[in-house]
Amino acid sequence: MKLTCLQENLNKGLNIVGKAAAGRTTLPITNNVLISTDDGRLKLAATNLEMAISCWIGAKIEEEGSTTIPAKLLTEFVSSLPNDKIDLSLNAKSKALNIKCARFEARITGVDSKDFPPIPKVENGISTKVSIDAFRQAVSEVVFASAADESRPVLTGVNAEFEGSTLTLAAADGFRLAVYKLPLLESVKTTTKVIIPARTLGELSRLASMDEEEALVINVDTAKSQILFRLKNIELVSQLVQGNFPQYNQIIPQSFTTRVVVDANQFLMATKTATIFARDGGGIVRLMMNPGGDTTPGKLTISARSEEVGDNTGELDAVIQGEEAKIAFNGKYLLDVLGVLKAQQVALEVTSPSSPGVIKPVGADNYIHVIMPMFVQW
Amino acid sequence: MKLTCLQENLNKGLNIVGKAAAGRTTLPITNNVLISTDDGRLKLAATNLEMAISCWIGAKIEEEGSTTIPAKLLTEFVSSLPNDKIDLSLNAKSKALNIKCARFEARITGVDSKDFPPIPKVENGISTKVSIDAFRQAVSEVVFASAADESRPVLTGVNAEFEGSTLTLAAADGFRLAVYKLPLLESVKTTTKVIIPARTLGELSRLASMDEEEALVINVDTAKSQILFRLKNIELVSQLVQGNFPQYNQIIPQSFTTRVVVDANQFLMATKTATIFARDGGGIVRLMMNPGGDTTPGKLTISARSEEVGDNTGELDAVIQGEEAKIAFNGKYLLDVLGVLKAQQVALEVTSPSSPGVIKPVGADNYIHVIMPMFVQW
Repeated sequence: MKLTCLQENLNKGLNIVGKAAAGRTTLPITNNVLISTDDGRLKLAATNLEMAISCWIGAKIEEEGSTTIPAKLLTEFVSSLPNDKIDLSLNAKSKALNIKCARFEARITGVDSKDFPPIPKVENGISTKVSIDAFRQAVSEVVFASAADESRPVLTGVNAEFEGSTLTLAAADGFRLAVYKLPLLESVKTTTKVIIPARTLGELSRLASMDEEEALVINVDTAKSQILFRLKNIELVSQLVQGNFPQYNQIIPQSFTTRVVVDANQFLMATKTATIFARDGGGIVRLMMNPGGDTTPGKLTISARSEEVGDNTGELDAVIQGEEAKIAFNGKYLLDVLGVLKAQQVALEVTSPSSPGVIKPVGADNYIHVIMPMFVQW
Repeated sequence: MKLTCLQENLNKGLNIVGKAAAGRTTLPITNNVLISTDDGRLKLAATNLEMAISCWIGAKIEEEGSTTIPAKLLTEFVSSLPNDKIDLSLNAKSKALNIKCARFEARITGVDSKDFPPIPKVENGISTKVSIDAFRQAVSEVVFASAADESRPVLTGVNAEFEGSTLTLAAADGFRLAVYKLPLLESVKTTTKVIIPARTLGELSRLASMDEEEALVINVDTAKSQILFRLKNIELVSQLVQGNFPQYNQIIPQSFTTRVVVDANQFLMATKTATIFARDGGGIVRLMMNPGGDTTPGKLTISARSEEVGDNTGELDAVIQGEEAKIAFNGKYLLDVLGVLKAQQVALEVTSPSSPGVIKPVGADNYIHVIMPMFVQW
């Protein structure tokens, strides 16, 4: 293998695939990045066996070939080089990769690429497309609601349902549920449900911001075991979580007795203030909704207290429909959802202090967030 | 106590003193910040018993008084409030501090200020002044060379020698030595040597960037047990390290056989690149100095190698005076000093591979940095 590329491109490529390199593992070669010539370009790939990322960069290939090199070392070294041409050449005998850039030169010992785990092909199943911006926003509003602990594996993923021209993403951890609908740019004929690991989606969001493409191609294989996401010069292949995602529609409340509309940012700020005092009190943040009268505006009061240190109260103007109401939530869950919504105003709908509350952006009907209340003495 | 101040000022003041609050301690009240009315202003103070920071902010005082409040909670709460007027009032019976700002209100339980450790007065000893910019630069070029481990307490501090119109700061950890001379704006009559904890100087640099004063007043008490630094609205009192700082002048080489002048930033970058490969090789970075000839420029070659992963080499143009030479250093020590120097060019002076190397900024003679070499096979 012998080729020339730009430091800027190689650096970017290594940063794209590097996150998939395993770090610490029983299969040491997965700490390496695969480097190979591929149809006139340079292909970089890394995998942690759950997820594999590949990326192609422009290069002048003089001699075909491939090798694998410790990902962390190579990434750090290349990022320290000046923005100039880089010559890469593989010494077949010593298996060392020689890297030359300006007046810097390094030799790094590699491992033969034939020992690198194969990256699965994803063929024959469904294939569709989404807008990258819409997909990233959907992921940001859903993925945090998935479970962090592994005790129920299906909840560590995001349920993705491809049906007609709609993709519905849903995540739940037992305390909350987030559901987001977005349009598919190409309809699917077969309704398909899969569970995508939350980590995969987080990583995909990061990659999408580094690519110039506007549409994301999604392929699921017939066996529903692998999913492929394709950007312009990047591909991510991930295993899917096997199992059945809970039937979540039945826990979405269909009605409410009180509906509050408030400024999203003010609601977020007041919740942040309350959580400071809620920390010693199990995270409990109390919301009181007062519809006001003919001459007084409606009011949302957000408070928290800790026996030890004290208490606090904040008030927001609100448009309140229905009766006076109160409900308590874990402040963290409120912060999570209020922190990702892009809407200027949000609606909170409640029925009773012991029934789930619903948060929706005002002016959009493609997102719903359900939070279980906490039982508190009022 | 009853007063009004601005959220912006109180927030800034709490951030200034908060770092001195102890965190975790056997004397719980040192987790609190002292709040008291003082001559028409509001005084905030915190101490970890080694170091105390006080700060004064403008306030409209209605009723004198004082209390102490958990520093972390108060700081977080105040920083979450809108930029508006804040009313503080102390409930003498419940000992709770009531904080009102816009439509937010909180009560935080305090502890009587009479239990707060007294902040030492620093009187009668020497008193002088330095420029804040010069002092901050001096601290940044010296403090990192002090010892991190506590086995030799005097080396965890910076030796400060006030003599005539010069302050000499020096730090050493057994592997390197940094000495910086800066002018005193007011001469001292009595030559005075003290050892200032490195933490104190680091904190002082942070504070100096938050204050509007241009000169820093320094007082040392007669017993040389405490030092006071005074900015416009901030005072820092610190204990001094007791003991004798090593006689460092004798380890500063008085001559050299090879002197290399290089671009400081290029030297830093090439060293960073080398340290990537030096990590598995005990941090060893090798420098080779080649004076060049009549038609070829001098050359500084920086290299590192690891048996396991590989090796690298970088070359810099250099003006080299004297003989060809080689020396090896721990790359971290080179990075530390090259990272803080402000000069465009630096000089490296060496005598033999086993004698200390000297690094100086070109164009200034107030700083000298000595690094012990590492013994390596060439």
